[in-house]
Amino acid sequence: MSGSGGSRRMPVAVLGATGSVGQRLVSLLADHPWFEVAALTASDRSAGKRYGDAARWLLPDPPPARIADMAVLPTEPALEPRLVFSALDAGVAGPVEAELARQGHVVVSNARSHRLDADVPLLVPEVNADHLCLVAQQPYGSGAIVTNPNCSTIGLTLALGPLVDAFGLERVHVVTLQAVSGAGYPGISSLDMVDNVVPFIAGEEEKLEVETLKVLGTVRDGSAGPHVAAAPFRVSAQCNRVPVLDGHLECVSVTLARDAALDAIRGAWEAFCGEPQALELPSAPRRPVHYVDGNDRPQPRLDRDVERGMAVAVGRLRPCPLFGHKFILVTHNTVRGAAGGAILCAELAVARGLV
Amino acid sequence: MSGSGGSRRMPVAVLGATGSVGQRLVSLLADHPWFEVAALTASDRSAGKRYGDAARWLLPDPPPARIADMAVLPTEPALEPRLVFSALDAGVAGPVEAELARQGHVVVSNARSHRLDADVPLLVPEVNADHLCLVAQQPYGSGAIVTNPNCSTIGLTLALGPLVDAFGLERVHVVTLQAVSGAGYPGISSLDMVDNVVPFIAGEEEKLEVETLKVLGTVRDGSAGPHVAAAPFRVSAQCNRVPVLDGHLECVSVTLARDAALDAIRGAWEAFCGEPQALELPSAPRRPVHYVDGNDRPQPRLDRDVERGMAVAVGRLRPCPLFGHKFILVTHNTVRGAAGGAILCAELAVARGLV
Amino acid sequence: MSGSGGSRRMPVAVLGATGSVGQRLVSLLADHPWFEVAALTASDRSAGKRYGDAARWLLPDPPPARIADMAVLPTEPALEPRLVFSALDAGVAGPVEAELARQGHVVVSNARSHRLDADVPLLVPEVNADHLCLVAQQPYGSGAIVTNPNCSTIGLTLALGPLVDAFGLERVHVVTLQAVSGAGYPGISSLDMVDNVVPFIAGEEEKLEVETLKVLGTVRDGSAGPHVAAAPFRVSAQCNRVPVLDGHLECVSVTLARDAALDAIRGAWEAFCGEPQALELPSAPRRPVHYVDGNDRPQPRLDRDVERGMAVAVGRLRPCPLFGHKFILVTHNTVRGAAGGAILCAELAVARGLV
Amino acid sequence: MSGSGGSRRMPVAVLGATGSVGQRLVSLLADHPWFEVAALTASDRSAGKRYGDAARWLLPDPPPARIADMAVLPTEPALEPRLVFSALDAGVAGPVEAELARQGHVVVSNARSHRLDADVPLLVPEVNADHLCLVAQQPYGSGAIVTNPNCSTIGLTLALGPLVDAFGLERVHVVTLQAVSGAGYPGISSLDMVDNVVPFIAGEEEKLEVETLKVLGTVRDGSAGPHVAAAPFRVSAQCNRVPVLDGHLECVSVTLARDAALDAIRGAWEAFCGEPQALELPSAPRRPVHYVDGNDRPQPRLDRDVERGMAVAVGRLRPCPLFGHKFILVTHNTVRGAAGGAILCAELAVARGLV
Repeated sequence: MSGSGGSRRMPVAVLGATGSVGQRLVSLLADHPWFEVAALTASDRSAGKRYGDAARWLLPDPPPARIADMAVLPTEPALEPRLVFSALDAGVAGPVEAELARQGHVVVSNARSHRLDADVPLLVPEVNADHLCLVAQQPYGSGAIVTNPNCSTIGLTLALGPLVDAFGLERVHVVTLQAVSGAGYPGISSLDMVDNVVPFIAGEEEKLEVETLKVLGTVRDGSAGPHVAAAPFRVSAQCNRVPVLDGHLECVSVTLARDAALDAIRGAWEAFCGEPQALELPSAPRRPVHYVDGNDRPQPRLDRDVERGMAVAVGRLRPCPLFGHKFILVTHNTVRGAAGGAILCAELAVARGLV
Repeated sequence: MSGSGGSRRMPVAVLGATGSVGQRLVSLLADHPWFEVAALTASDRSAGKRYGDAARWLLPDPPPARIADMAVLPTEPALEPRLVFSALDAGVAGPVEAELARQGHVVVSNARSHRLDADVPLLVPEVNADHLCLVAQQPYGSGAIVTNPNCSTIGLTLALGPLVDAFGLERVHVVTLQAVSGAGYPGISSLDMVDNVVPFIAGEEEKLEVETLKVLGTVRDGSAGPHVAAAPFRVSAQCNRVPVLDGHLECVSVTLARDAALDAIRGAWEAFCGEPQALELPSAPRRPVHYVDGNDRPQPRLDRDVERGMAVAVGRLRPCPLFGHKFILVTHNTVRGAAGGAILCAELAVARGLV
Repeated sequence: MSGSGGSRRMPVAVLGATGSVGQRLVSLLADHPWFEVAALTASDRSAGKRYGDAARWLLPDPPPARIADMAVLPTEPALEPRLVFSALDAGVAGPVEAELARQGHVVVSNARSHRLDADVPLLVPEVNADHLCLVAQQPYGSGAIVTNPNCSTIGLTLALGPLVDAFGLERVHVVTLQAVSGAGYPGISSLDMVDNVVPFIAGEEEKLEVETLKVLGTVRDGSAGPHVAAAPFRVSAQCNRVPVLDGHLECVSVTLARDAALDAIRGAWEAFCGEPQALELPSAPRRPVHYVDGNDRPQPRLDRDVERGMAVAVGRLRPCPLFGHKFILVTHNTVRGAAGGAILCAELAVARGLV
Repeated sequence: MSGSGGSRRMPVAVLGATGSVGQRLVSLLADHPWFEVAALTASDRSAGKRYGDAARWLLPDPPPARIADMAVLPTEPALEPRLVFSALDAGVAGPVEAELARQGHVVVSNARSHRLDADVPLLVPEVNADHLCLVAQQPYGSGAIVTNPNCSTIGLTLALGPLVDAFGLERVHVVTLQAVSGAGYPGISSLDMVDNVVPFIAGEEEKLEVETLKVLGTVRDGSAGPHVAAAPFRVSAQCNRVPVLDGHLECVSVTLARDAALDAIRGAWEAFCGEPQALELPSAPRRPVHYVDGNDRPQPRLDRDVERGMAVAVGRLRPCPLFGHKFILVTHNTVRGAAGGAILCAELAVARGLV
């Protein structure tokens, strides 16, 4: 599909379609102008069932009737659609995605399994669309694996990207207040979330500290072809789980390489756009970063849905006595931070001719 | 009262007794071995009413019958008891507390009005009992004003105090997740706390950044007598409100002046004790800082009540890529962070012969 | 406006526009095909301010820029638009609404002040559109007052209406679990809603027990003209507040006059429609009652938005050992239960030529 | 043990000790004057581990060090202590408890498996201590099985018992708002409890409708020995899960056999006491039913801990247009409603010489 139209939509498969990210993928793909869900897979327990019966549906709007009536397939490497979205658990995603790529599928994955592989792009399309060139290094022939970062990394890098471009970045300190939907269903027990917060999310701090540097890294040519040199600053993360349904809040302190007035920083965010905007990809937000006025904004419930959940809301930019500047951000963790982010990656891949 | 016993308890007054901190004071003083509530004041709207009718009681255990039956007095400077606890709103506390001191009362205040006055101690008794000497500078004769820091500052300085003593401190970065009881009643609307967090608390970040340095400052002699030199490091704070009833969680990163192994830091916390412990003050926790094991601890609901809410729970000590070390802490904001902290200050004042 | 089109939309005023129901009215009227907000009023404190500054906006989507820039008027009887929506507090609504009607305005009110007046229709348009004839009895000339029931009554009567029609009704027992938005902003303190429910809502049980009978009552002709004879059964209500943002859940037991199979009852709900559907009013749900399958449905968060919040979701119909049948329902309390319900009443009034 | 003292406490075993009811049993037995935990069992996954490591501890106070250091045993019928508390899942409890009884153990069970067996007492000691005689019918020789009703049934029958005695009872309608701890850990997903309630608890309505009649039934002598004739009225129940940690709220409507003034009903509750009070059993509340004044009381968070969670709090007694009277109650579901209730049953069994 060279472009956005065509009389027929491109068939796609969704792996792990019954989980919470899988449901968001199904929901966001329901009316997609380019893509059409043609195959759904889940664990053996669900395989063979009607999708509407196999998925304990968590979203207010029910799945489209056509999709609810589809039979769930086992998650096995024998799928019709060339483009495959993976919402598999990291425990199984690695080898399944690799095998699908070997068979010629283009896999856009939300799982962490291949994110840090040297030849796999970790894409936030507004920020590092050029990383897509890494797939040429992959051993999969016409197949490929493209990954989406962790939900909290996506929001953070959307806000940091414009700062790297305009001012350079030296240090990043981030404390997150993350929504329960990030843990899937059933995920976090209500006994842990009534009158409480949990100051720990397994593996999350490491992901933020490492994935951020890859996303904001630079493509370099080497003897063995292009690779990404990690961004040359340090990130420190502390992650907390809070009783919010959707929407991660992040409290960020940064030291810029070149000092900048508050207005200049705000201007950099508001002017920011990237390839998804230039290419007018269907899921691209008009503006990837929205600065929200009000001394108590952004808030998860009020700001997570900005641009249908595809943009990041930033606010409270002010001086930091230690770092130079601090601010907060809110990102919809299952839309831009997972399913919507993956769809945008796929749109970029299609527009670039990879699929 | 020179010591802890005596056949008769010392009468005390509670100003602002119907509010949430006032209620905690009444509750904690109910069975106090040294003090006996002899006067309760509130705004004109409540004055004259029976205390049990005037206070919309928020705690599970009802107020003692004797106190519930007392008549609420107007908040005016004509009180019998010499020792006065102030839970007044900052809007009115300043002049009322000063006038009471002029009349010879010793006022232990939870309000922010006098906290930063040069001649007023801002006390966390385990950390800076020596600051009590400032009262000699006050123009009140036998009267005095002693203050309790902000709730989030008390928890932070209890955890930082041992680090200052053992290793020196150069930088502190703190992000808080604060309980709704800190805003009093009715305080935060439930519409702001269902499926949400609010990333702003008016004035709170400034208090944390300034009060911490006074508490951890050093008494110096000058031509005009002793004064406190603020601690020579910087603090950066970001404060959030979360749907937790009681218990502030703080995410802290620190740079120590002298590098220290994790074990040494933990040892400093566990060995820490101060004058309240040496004097065996009745409200003193046995150990002011408890290190809690478990990678997801401390949590507000599970750890806020350690040592009846009078100690701070610390955990998750680990290296910070930017600061050196990071950890989290939980403190009961209306017990140690307000009413209980004020009572401990009063106990120290009595033991030192100030009252 | 005789019909739905016209090249120009009818100007309307919103009284009490800064409160939570006022905001919903503004939001729902923003893109209304018939109506256009031309005046906004609020208390003197807000009058004169820009609406966007005066309203502490509680909804995810911000108010339209045109409306945000309008100046708030004082709530006084000197308004241009003939059609007026009232979201005033009951404390002030009564005389203001009467004076506006005297001046020739048609007032559609969400306040309780005039609901039980003998000459004022208490409208749920699908259920009792014929009650609109009461306005002929009103002493206001071309002006009129039309009211919307209490939020919990609207959901209940939408579910009971079809049962009255098909089987007759003898007894109704209802226990509600009501959302916090029903109390406005700031409304319920978060201290009452963290780890808690409150088993009392002032005046609510009485409203449910009385308003339900008026809505389901019958228009009778008398010597003094038409009046509504209250429905001849009894209602018993217990109302609880729960930590849910939007969406009232009601647990209902009913005794029908004529016994009915579960299928017949379900059929009556699914077949139910009324004048709003016949007239194709713009805010009318396609089907006013949706039966939701699933033994744990409807739930507030998942089902409150059925048909954009304008329909009621019913489920768990089963035998009741005491009453005959029991079921549960969920209704969006600030959409169908307040602002959206009032707009539907206004649409009916326009379609009937009252405005 | 004939009485309460003795120089040595009676050893007891706790089956299913790592779950949430098991933890409450361990916690409440820690300082018990009669009983001493001598054996702890859990599933094979935990067997062999140190209890402190096997149990994901959910209560604020940690388990006593002595118990934390005990090794968890497999749940098999080879236990030293004669008295056994069972907090097993119903899925496995039935045959395990029967085998233990056959071996001579007295099993006090919180599981539902044997509750409705004709020869098994379903005990709420203040209400039906005489049902204990049923054990003579059991085929277990010196062993026996005694059961504790469902958590919501215990609160309901404590409130209804005095009404049955004083006025007779004809009809009971109950709608519950139940806490999440009733579902164990992890139990209910936080995704179901943020901004939501769930109007269904599997099997709970049936338990309330049936167990209530057995608890309030009458021991009759028959040719085959004593048996319990179910109480001759009907109960209708609707059960909801709400985001409350501990404390079930129940909204109750009743028709009494003999009409009674509100004062007389309140008097019956306040005068009520039973064998646990007469025998001064160590876990008995001083008064089993507390009437709480205040039009919005009892509330779960404020009233669940009345008499250390062992009494039921009742309030809002008022006329019901359909039933005669209505009221609400709050009971601590994991204390009186589970672990504490079972311990009281065991104390009764010991005092009666059964153990």
